[in-house]
Amino acid sequence: MYKISIITIGDEILNGQIINTNVAFISELLTEIGVNIVYHGTVGDNIRDIQRELNFAFQYSDFVITTGGLGPTDDDKTKRAVAEYFNDELKTSEPTLKHIINMLSEKGREISNVHKEQANIPSKSLALHNNVGTAPGIFIRENNQKIILLPGVPSEMTYLMYNEVLPIIQQELQKSLEEIIKFKTIITAGIYESKLAELIGAESNYPNGILLAYLPSSKGVRLRIGAKAKDFDTANKMIEDFENSINKKISPYVIGYGKEDIITYLAKLLRESKLTISVAESCTGGLLGATLTQIDGSSAYFVGGFQTYSNKSKEDLLNVPINILEAYGAVSAQTAEIMAFNTRNLLHTDIGISITGIAGPNGGTTDKPIGTVYIGYSDKYETSSKKFIFGNDRILNRERAVTEALLIIRDRILANEDISN
Amino acid sequence: MYKISIITIGDEILNGQIINTNVAFISELLTEIGVNIVYHGTVGDNIRDIQRELNFAFQYSDFVITTGGLGPTDDDKTKRAVAEYFNDELKTSEPTLKHIINMLSEKGREISNVHKEQANIPSKSLALHNNVGTAPGIFIRENNQKIILLPGVPSEMTYLMYNEVLPIIQQELQKSLEEIIKFKTIITAGIYESKLAELIGAESNYPNGILLAYLPSSKGVRLRIGAKAKDFDTANKMIEDFENSINKKISPYVIGYGKEDIITYLAKLLRESKLTISVAESCTGGLLGATLTQIDGSSAYFVGGFQTYSNKSKEDLLNVPINILEAYGAVSAQTAEIMAFNTRNLLHTDIGISITGIAGPNGGTTDKPIGTVYIGYSDKYETSSKKFIFGNDRILNRERAVTEALLIIRDRILANEDISN
Repeated sequence: MYKISIITIGDEILNGQIINTNVAFISELLTEIGVNIVYHGTVGDNIRDIQRELNFAFQYSDFVITTGGLGPTDDDKTKRAVAEYFNDELKTSEPTLKHIINMLSEKGREISNVHKEQANIPSKSLALHNNVGTAPGIFIRENNQKIILLPGVPSEMTYLMYNEVLPIIQQELQKSLEEIIKFKTIITAGIYESKLAELIGAESNYPNGILLAYLPSSKGVRLRIGAKAKDFDTANKMIEDFENSINKKISPYVIGYGKEDIITYLAKLLRESKLTISVAESCTGGLLGATLTQIDGSSAYFVGGFQTYSNKSKEDLLNVPINILEAYGAVSAQTAEIMAFNTRNLLHTDIGISITGIAGPNGGTTDKPIGTVYIGYSDKYETSSKKFIFGNDRILNRERAVTEALLIIRDRILANEDISN
Repeated sequence: MYKISIITIGDEILNGQIINTNVAFISELLTEIGVNIVYHGTVGDNIRDIQRELNFAFQYSDFVITTGGLGPTDDDKTKRAVAEYFNDELKTSEPTLKHIINMLSEKGREISNVHKEQANIPSKSLALHNNVGTAPGIFIRENNQKIILLPGVPSEMTYLMYNEVLPIIQQELQKSLEEIIKFKTIITAGIYESKLAELIGAESNYPNGILLAYLPSSKGVRLRIGAKAKDFDTANKMIEDFENSINKKISPYVIGYGKEDIITYLAKLLRESKLTISVAESCTGGLLGATLTQIDGSSAYFVGGFQTYSNKSKEDLLNVPINILEAYGAVSAQTAEIMAFNTRNLLHTDIGISITGIAGPNGGTTDKPIGTVYIGYSDKYETSSKKFIFGNDRILNRERAVTEALLIIRDRILANEDISN
């Protein structure tokens, strides 16, 4: 199998100030196209240590990817360390310099020497265009050693991975004649890992070469199917056959494939059904609306909503009657349902959805412990609510509430009644 | 300085299924007591690779800590790899076996051979008591090589770090006469990394022993000052002196220290000033409200707001006049200011803040390119707006808009006028 090592460069990762999410992102992306990730290493912003790492990683890998240390400041050492490693020197990449100047002048920012510095790359290297930042990716192929340097800023690293690195690695894989592994990830929601495993059956029954992994998160369980084969066609066929064999059992829970998650799925569903939606949020403070609009084109379905954090705002903005708030409380089925119903009517949308709860870590009672959340739903046929009791973690409770709200909307749309106004 | 390397063992980390939060936790804890974390390595559940890692890490470290691969199943190889590495064999630790039997019988679970297996540790090692799980920590000190093996389950690793590992490392530090490193992180916002670096000046001008790192994110740039010295008192003095020397230049951008970020800082400021706030959000869809309420106790200042994504909702909910929307557009200073002013009045808060912009990746024009964002601000004395042009990344543009909005609120509060209604 084609072996890749990933080196992270940065004192802030080494001393634990920043969690290394980059390496997980890169590893997952490459694992999915059949690469074998053999090693992750992290070292500080220090030329000697970086070179020591390169030496170590190249011994065990066909390709090395680094992230970090490409910034414009003195503490960023990656370029210099790598140039030295390959007995090379830094030279200005003119297209990169042009891109940097364009980018900064568009924003009306002045160009300093520190910025120009970012266009300097090893003379033997190829600059990889970074559309979202000023540090280019850098690709070196020398004496059978292949390496790509990526910036550490997650958005820039992500852009470069998708647009520059994946095509390069894909080509490398096609040239290599080694056994490959192909993955397909099926995204499920609304089912526990153990239940999903029960439906699919024991590992001993899988066909030869098929590997299965269950990846649970607060957004659902992802089911990763792997197939080891000599080539992609064979692997794809193996995956297809296996998927067909389990499809009948799991299809009610499947919401998408690959990196798709519930919001990507729901956004598509809302657009296709030409349905509009409005929100009313208490304990999430806007997180549901923020999630519904995180995807480009969300104006097709998202109209707006109310962040009614205080009781007074629930009364003033959403006309929740004071006697309902007093009798049942702000965290109740009644309040949730009125919030959903009223936002739908005030904003003239097909669907209204509300969240009210006790996110924690304080504010719980015996009746309504921390983590109690009511989600209200309203369309022209139905107004209802669902109660959840999550855990003690404020951040996680808010995320879970949003996921459950999205699942409720999905279920109602899939029920196939015409709920458009 | 006392050098420690951390090795993570596990296929699920290597292929990116799980983000390695353990290594950040351990690193941060040890960095705080003056240890120099020099290396993180991750390898798969594979005896040869684990041994290769040990070899590599011991060359550069006084002490090695591993996590993962201590489970009871066949794919957990750490113990065997380490025993072999030290020419040792596994032997039952009687106190550990007793602990495992007690633990399981308390839960009414049967004890299998797989469970008993967990009490087997290298004969030359010391078992470290794991109160929250069945896999003990393992401490080996052999030929000047010192290593501790920890389980990968975060709660068990955490328990062992606090209760067993920290005291051991503390003792090691006291015995070693090497220099220590102390860090202090200054949180800045509203300034770019390159500009901050310019203000502070080149590395060559720093005093001896002072290390500087710039850690940029969408929330601002964190400036980490490190001081290498023989003892903590000297290091603290060095940091204090250096901070004083740069303070005049950077103080307008400093919003806090350590782990504090702009929202933590602002939440405190709002609470202390007893000010209330409401929001009106267009392109952020609720993200500003979600951010303002992510902190426990936010009901002290956050009242509520409006998610006015469509033009119609800006009219209907926030009474933005249609002729303003038509004349200047939804993304304009005028619209932003009316949104801020009206949300403040409708919700009777001290401060109203609004965000309207083109988050991208589509919807830009020549006049208003993607990334154009207006932030409106209103209090009883002033209603104003500020224009920003961010980049092309939708997610990042929304995050930056939120950060800038928080900074605008901060600046106004710090201006020290009494803006409470």
